[in-house]
Amino acid sequence: MSDAKPISRFPVPEIKNLPDDVREQILAVQEKAGFVPNVFLTLAHRPAEFRAFFAYHDALMLKDTGSLTKADREMIVTATSAHNSCLYCVVAHGALLRIYAKNPLLADQVAVNHRKADITPRQRAMLDFAVKVCLDSAQVDDGDYAALHAHGFDDEDIWDIAAITAFFGLSNRMANAIGMRPNDEFYLMGRLPKK
Amino acid sequence: MSDAKPISRFPVPEIKNLPDDVREQILAVQEKAGFVPNVFLTLAHRPAEFRAFFAYHDALMLKDTGSLTKADREMIVTATSAHNSCLYCVVAHGALLRIYAKNPLLADQVAVNHRKADITPRQRAMLDFAVKVCLDSAQVDDGDYAALHAHGFDDEDIWDIAAITAFFGLSNRMANAIGMRPNDEFYLMGRLPKK
Amino acid sequence: MSDAKPISRFPVPEIKNLPDDVREQILAVQEKAGFVPNVFLTLAHRPAEFRAFFAYHDALMLKDTGSLTKADREMIVTATSAHNSCLYCVVAHGALLRIYAKNPLLADQVAVNHRKADITPRQRAMLDFAVKVCLDSAQVDDGDYAALHAHGFDDEDIWDIAAITAFFGLSNRMANAIGMRPNDEFYLMGRLPKK
Amino acid sequence: MSDAKPISRFPVPEIKNLPDDVREQILAVQEKAGFVPNVFLTLAHRPAEFRAFFAYHDALMLKDTGSLTKADREMIVTATSAHNSCLYCVVAHGALLRIYAKNPLLADQVAVNHRKADITPRQRAMLDFAVKVCLDSAQVDDGDYAALHAHGFDDEDIWDIAAITAFFGLSNRMANAIGMRPNDEFYLMGRLPKK
Amino acid sequence: MSDAKPISRFPVPEIKNLPDDVREQILAVQEKAGFVPNVFLTLAHRPAEFRAFFAYHDALMLKDTGSLTKADREMIVTATSAHNSCLYCVVAHGALLRIYAKNPLLADQVAVNHRKADITPRQRAMLDFAVKVCLDSAQVDDGDYAALHAHGFDDEDIWDIAAITAFFGLSNRMANAIGMRPNDEFYLMGRLPKK
Amino acid sequence: MSDAKPISRFPVPEIKNLPDDVREQILAVQEKAGFVPNVFLTLAHRPAEFRAFFAYHDALMLKDTGSLTKADREMIVTATSAHNSCLYCVVAHGALLRIYAKNPLLADQVAVNHRKADITPRQRAMLDFAVKVCLDSAQVDDGDYAALHAHGFDDEDIWDIAAITAFFGLSNRMANAIGMRPNDEFYLMGRLPKK
Repeated sequence: MSDAKPISRFPVPEIKNLPDDVREQILAVQEKAGFVPNVFLTLAHRPAEFRAFFAYHDALMLKDTGSLTKADREMIVTATSAHNSCLYCVVAHGALLRIYAKNPLLADQVAVNHRKADITPRQRAMLDFAVKVCLDSAQVDDGDYAALHAHGFDDEDIWDIAAITAFFGLSNRMANAIGMRPNDEFYLMGRLPKK
Repeated sequence: MSDAKPISRFPVPEIKNLPDDVREQILAVQEKAGFVPNVFLTLAHRPAEFRAFFAYHDALMLKDTGSLTKADREMIVTATSAHNSCLYCVVAHGALLRIYAKNPLLADQVAVNHRKADITPRQRAMLDFAVKVCLDSAQVDDGDYAALHAHGFDDEDIWDIAAITAFFGLSNRMANAIGMRPNDEFYLMGRLPKK
Repeated sequence: MSDAKPISRFPVPEIKNLPDDVREQILAVQEKAGFVPNVFLTLAHRPAEFRAFFAYHDALMLKDTGSLTKADREMIVTATSAHNSCLYCVVAHGALLRIYAKNPLLADQVAVNHRKADITPRQRAMLDFAVKVCLDSAQVDDGDYAALHAHGFDDEDIWDIAAITAFFGLSNRMANAIGMRPNDEFYLMGRLPKK
Repeated sequence: MSDAKPISRFPVPEIKNLPDDVREQILAVQEKAGFVPNVFLTLAHRPAEFRAFFAYHDALMLKDTGSLTKADREMIVTATSAHNSCLYCVVAHGALLRIYAKNPLLADQVAVNHRKADITPRQRAMLDFAVKVCLDSAQVDDGDYAALHAHGFDDEDIWDIAAITAFFGLSNRMANAIGMRPNDEFYLMGRLPKK
Repeated sequence: MSDAKPISRFPVPEIKNLPDDVREQILAVQEKAGFVPNVFLTLAHRPAEFRAFFAYHDALMLKDTGSLTKADREMIVTATSAHNSCLYCVVAHGALLRIYAKNPLLADQVAVNHRKADITPRQRAMLDFAVKVCLDSAQVDDGDYAALHAHGFDDEDIWDIAAITAFFGLSNRMANAIGMRPNDEFYLMGRLPKK
Repeated sequence: MSDAKPISRFPVPEIKNLPDDVREQILAVQEKAGFVPNVFLTLAHRPAEFRAFFAYHDALMLKDTGSLTKADREMIVTATSAHNSCLYCVVAHGALLRIYAKNPLLADQVAVNHRKADITPRQRAMLDFAVKVCLDSAQVDDGDYAALHAHGFDDEDIWDIAAITAFFGLSNRMANAIGMRPNDEFYLMGRLPKK
């Protein structure tokens, strides 16, 4: 398959023409991942929004407090992005989920039906809540908080679940609206045993 | 009615205890509006997310390029927040819509049914697209772009409409999940003739 | 803003040409309210239906038995009309709700999300049931009756809640189908402190 | 089968104890139909609402102007009541539809899927509009009026279609909420050739 | 009414031209029922699928183990086919339900709203589960099994309920897609007392 | 990961105890695939249904007439099974789709949002129709046939699309109801270049 397929309905800037901070952030990702995920290139069309987007992303996904593991967070992203039918996020964050969870099956399970996935009851409760915030946040009430407390989540964890869901709801809608295409590399990541 | 009602399920920081930049931003808003909108106080519970949230907000709502007026932008927020049943955003941004549009009726019209509002066909097309991005972004396709082009929107305007919708979709879900309460002041703003 | 906007897709009769009883009813309302609500003018296009409509309305909204207050009844109308996206009824009955409840915030709260409104648990149960009758009456069962009994409603109150919801479901559909426009006066009513 | 099954969750008045006008109306129906349809007995629990209900019903269903036939009107009731899952109205008005249309198959067809029924394109357009008013009246717009005009309906016919749908939406919700049971007699009416 | 109406969008084979086994199966049905149900004629257009369809049908509907009665099975078909708006199956299997249950009212009740039908609590639980499998099988979980066990269904009965629902979901989609028309004979079957 | 996870809520027969024809069919599949797909083992619990299921499957998926390629057919299964949230079929038939289409990306694309997949306009039309049959077959009408004819599908192809969708709708519901677990082997199949 060819990489010639457009990755956005909008102009994709050349890395060398980007503002220094944006360019450096992108080069750092490329260094680490071996390629530049298209979300960086496509959102760089608007540097101010790019900066806010990734600042928000990092505040939620790179924070080192709270009880959510990295795999938990990617599981939330994968499950809710599937409900929003966002190809980019299901494919890219499904890859991260496989890697962090060291489980090549989990992402596909969570994307199709989290109720049938090989997860713990605690993770099931986490995803039930995330899906509710994703699809019907107006119905969130005390009962949801109580259900999560019963699984050992504290209020800050609940904020994390809600905020990750809310942030990727933004991301899903942008990806769908601008036609963001996932890099081919993501599809296979985390599916093979580490050598 | 009393302001003693809780404005969030989470701790609300005292302004004096906030990081300098956050505190200054809040004081500046207070100076301008005469009160501190609760979205500032409630999100300040998490300064890193606060900074990203308002950076994103400002990039979309304060930008001075493109053909969307300030009233257009608030109209998008009001209409889509109503579909997400977000009390905070309907009330607060409805107030801004009344003020920017200098029209005391428009916010209620747009919140209940934008198809019956006193708006132009161009604004109707804008809101039709925003509601689609809000409720079913996976169905966005070339036809949507063509329909907006026919009303004189260019691609950058379309990004603006989608991004405002996506960002406030995040905001709506956070407000619903943390129980953010709108300030009583918003309800009446823009309803009376300027003296 | 101008009152020149059409208030119906159908001919609006002149008051002086209406049958005596219809004209008198309209003049009495005008005397009391200071203006003629458009629901009277637009439905007067069909006097026989006009008479039945207001007889039904009065039987439900002016009755002086049962435990529902006037504010309770208008709250039911406002909440369910919002689910039917009926601009006329949300605006007009939201005004009455503000007045009867002596609360300038309540109508907007109930219209956007009754679960976040400043209401009692009893009112919450009342509105939960009303919304169920509005959206999915086929699912009404013994459990709904029991839930309402637990809040002190008797069977006659339940009939009242259901009947008000059902009647305004008719009203909402007529208003939407004929393009009934709310009078500008309603938007501000009950928002300012009584002098 | 036994008629001992309750026909309402509410007390059913004895005919002899009803106000004169209500009793006479019921006896007249009994004289004509050979039995008293349960909608009369169950709504007679509230005489004021009974009077308004049947005044409205008669204004819409017994009027002799406009181009809708009696069969057309019952077809609207049957189709929309099926969408509201109202057993009483599907069974009782399905019987009337069979009789007025002199067609023993039509009611079952319209109740299950009006798009597969043996009806004219004009009736199909009529039912498409009725179902839209029933399920999503907020979306009614100029296009709906134009589509009906194209089939020879004038504006007054459109009012009739909308009003019949709206009125039986009220009736469906009341029947579902109070547990109104259709008389056994209705099920077979109009299914056998007239002797 | 005329039998000249097409019974399928596809060619309907002449019985005499069919493969022997298919022809014999059809003639046996005709012998027993007095007419050939259109599902046989229309599916015979594809003999291989015909054979598999009726083998599946017979495995589920003619089996003589398990606690589901013939009426129970037809009740499942009628209720779920109504949710799929399948005219053929509601009419044809409604007829069988009336006959097996010896109850002329039951099919119409179950088709409109099984929650209002004259059935036992056990049958209500059975239909609740069938409707869930029909509309939202991804949500089936341990709770559904427990609810059915509580009514005396064992796991094999649950398989039966699910499989009948699943099989007729196939049948409903085929009937809707190819425009399968029910025979006129079905509409009246089981409505009159046996002489 | 362990294969100790249950593959069904029901007893899974030992191959050696199965009726000869069922055992032979399973051994033949094992010979060809290198493992026994769980759909064979789990459905073998009921040999009569097993035989009908695979006869139906083979009639639709192994037929060598019509213009649908093997990849087209698996694409229909993958897309519609995703709408039914059926983990087994998305994972197993996604694997087959990758293999037949010789495209490691296609299955994930089609499962998340077929409108964003790398497919031809003809395949897009095919999937649009399949999804309509899956989700709302009652709305299928002449326009759907015309749209498919415009892409070169003939009526027999349309039957194929509908029948594959309908058959796997059955399969999806059975898999969801009995808790059928996909074999771990499927997840990686077709993702790596053939050596």
